[in-house]
Amino acid sequence: MRQDLSVTSAMEPVWVGVDVGGTKVLAGVVDEHGRVVRTARRATPGRRVDTVRVEDALVQAVLEVAGGSPIGGVGVAAAGFVDASGSRVMFAPHLPWQGEDVRDRLADRWGVPVTLDNDANGAAVAEWTYGAARGARSVVVVTMGTGIGGGIIIDDHLVRGANGMAGEFGHMQVVPGGQPCECGGRGCWEQYSSGNALVRFARARMGEQPSVLEEATGGNPDLVTGPMVTEAAEDGDLVARQAFRSVGDWLGVGVANLVAAFDPEVVVIGGGVSAAGDRLLEPARTALVRSLVGAAHRRVPPLVAALLGPEAGLVGAAELARRAAQARR
Amino acid sequence: MRQDLSVTSAMEPVWVGVDVGGTKVLAGVVDEHGRVVRTARRATPGRRVDTVRVEDALVQAVLEVAGGSPIGGVGVAAAGFVDASGSRVMFAPHLPWQGEDVRDRLADRWGVPVTLDNDANGAAVAEWTYGAARGARSVVVVTMGTGIGGGIIIDDHLVRGANGMAGEFGHMQVVPGGQPCECGGRGCWEQYSSGNALVRFARARMGEQPSVLEEATGGNPDLVTGPMVTEAAEDGDLVARQAFRSVGDWLGVGVANLVAAFDPEVVVIGGGVSAAGDRLLEPARTALVRSLVGAAHRRVPPLVAALLGPEAGLVGAAELARRAAQARR
Repeated sequence: MRQDLSVTSAMEPVWVGVDVGGTKVLAGVVDEHGRVVRTARRATPGRRVDTVRVEDALVQAVLEVAGGSPIGGVGVAAAGFVDASGSRVMFAPHLPWQGEDVRDRLADRWGVPVTLDNDANGAAVAEWTYGAARGARSVVVVTMGTGIGGGIIIDDHLVRGANGMAGEFGHMQVVPGGQPCECGGRGCWEQYSSGNALVRFARARMGEQPSVLEEATGGNPDLVTGPMVTEAAEDGDLVARQAFRSVGDWLGVGVANLVAAFDPEVVVIGGGVSAAGDRLLEPARTALVRSLVGAAHRRVPPLVAALLGPEAGLVGAAELARRAAQARR
Repeated sequence: MRQDLSVTSAMEPVWVGVDVGGTKVLAGVVDEHGRVVRTARRATPGRRVDTVRVEDALVQAVLEVAGGSPIGGVGVAAAGFVDASGSRVMFAPHLPWQGEDVRDRLADRWGVPVTLDNDANGAAVAEWTYGAARGARSVVVVTMGTGIGGGIIIDDHLVRGANGMAGEFGHMQVVPGGQPCECGGRGCWEQYSSGNALVRFARARMGEQPSVLEEATGGNPDLVTGPMVTEAAEDGDLVARQAFRSVGDWLGVGVANLVAAFDPEVVVIGGGVSAAGDRLLEPARTALVRSLVGAAHRRVPPLVAALLGPEAGLVGAAELARRAAQARR
């Protein structure tokens, strides 16, 4: 009897999510509760290689993590622009794809259905299905890493946009003629609220008052890093704490703009910077209430930290594969 | 035979839309092609009256315009905040309602189903169903009057938001610490791109160069009005034209923010200021391409003028009533 069950269990298909970032490919088997059962990783071969080498890394990581179990479907979350049909990676700063039909190529290699979306959408779906926005029907997810990514759920549907580019919150202009941005614009939100902005604010304030960042960098602001600012803030350093307050304040201002436009039930802040928790979110909540139109006439949405951590992208990717299979039935 | 047809025709139910603004109540019978067959109007009794007086004006205008035909349903578009369930007007600057269950009260008086939404959503639905965005599945509509209103269609659905307040684009902050706004905030988009902004820009430039606005106002900038600036611009006045360029440029900057977030197929500009057409839209298109993230990697959505004019609100309201009836079947 026990043996029968284990045979059945071994035959149950697994659902796999893969997060393809600039430095690593992380594949995971995700169970029906959104838990990552096991993972496998490969280094990302880089941008200037043949696309087949990146695809090889994906194929191997997924086969390894599946460990011989049949695969129900694979969801791929890529750090780049995915077209509206979810078949192609149009452009990615750290990956070689430039319009290739990645979804069908990978589906052929694994012999199973594949879904493809960008990593911020993956993280948004994960937080909405299993994480901080569980149960909500309309959600804005802001992912704060070196820049800002975003995902939008409206009336229980992920919003992809006409070009698959919905949720590019980081490049909404918040300061006319402001800080130059990698995108070619000026004054983009992510120049004021992101990991990079945190470092810039800390550098700018060094020398204004004593700071452990002085010692850590020998007084050279160029050597300040994000983790250094985070650690210094935890140790009570005033320069580092002020940098978090600035980034948090700008976070709240930008979130107020998103809430004015979308009126979501909840706003989730994810990505590496969100690990700072209330050090980031408290000033953001204050700025949100201050900046939001009609705050007195509405329920201001809770501004909460993401729950699923760095695996959110792959969890959401696996979830999208699962949902696609349900839709096909 | 002819008589039979006319009897049948008289028995066909009519669909009525009502736009309830600060100065007038405009009711119209709207046919299945979105055409306004006939209208009736009443003055809006004002804000400091009993709510029943406003409702009386609505009831009478609708009964008059129906002219004895049976009514299939009535759609009400109100200049105010309507709750997410579409039953109550929570707050309106020029109307007495403050949370009353307007929808059910009116349904009782007419004895027919009623839908209720805000006027910007009505205009958006009208442009999407019968106007400038016909056939598109995702649309952003920006309504430029004295301020900015907005409506959003995503994947063929009107987005209402958790509080019914989605689309409040006018109060997205575009200038930190900028122009004070009636909402209590500073630097709101509508302070830079609206009928009021047009007048402010024109006033600020009077005296910098010769302008017909000098003569028209005896040199008193306080006497400049929106229609005056529009007329002066048509006559080639440089101050007035520059005011339109400024408002148009800011329109494009704000639209770029909305496109970054929503990635719609098309953006429609409606409201009174949009009557200026390309004088407003050309500088807006230039600013949109300049400001939009990844403009080279995507299809930049067309920025087009609304087609349905000042009756868009009531046309959309009637359409929402019709759609609600279809959904009930």
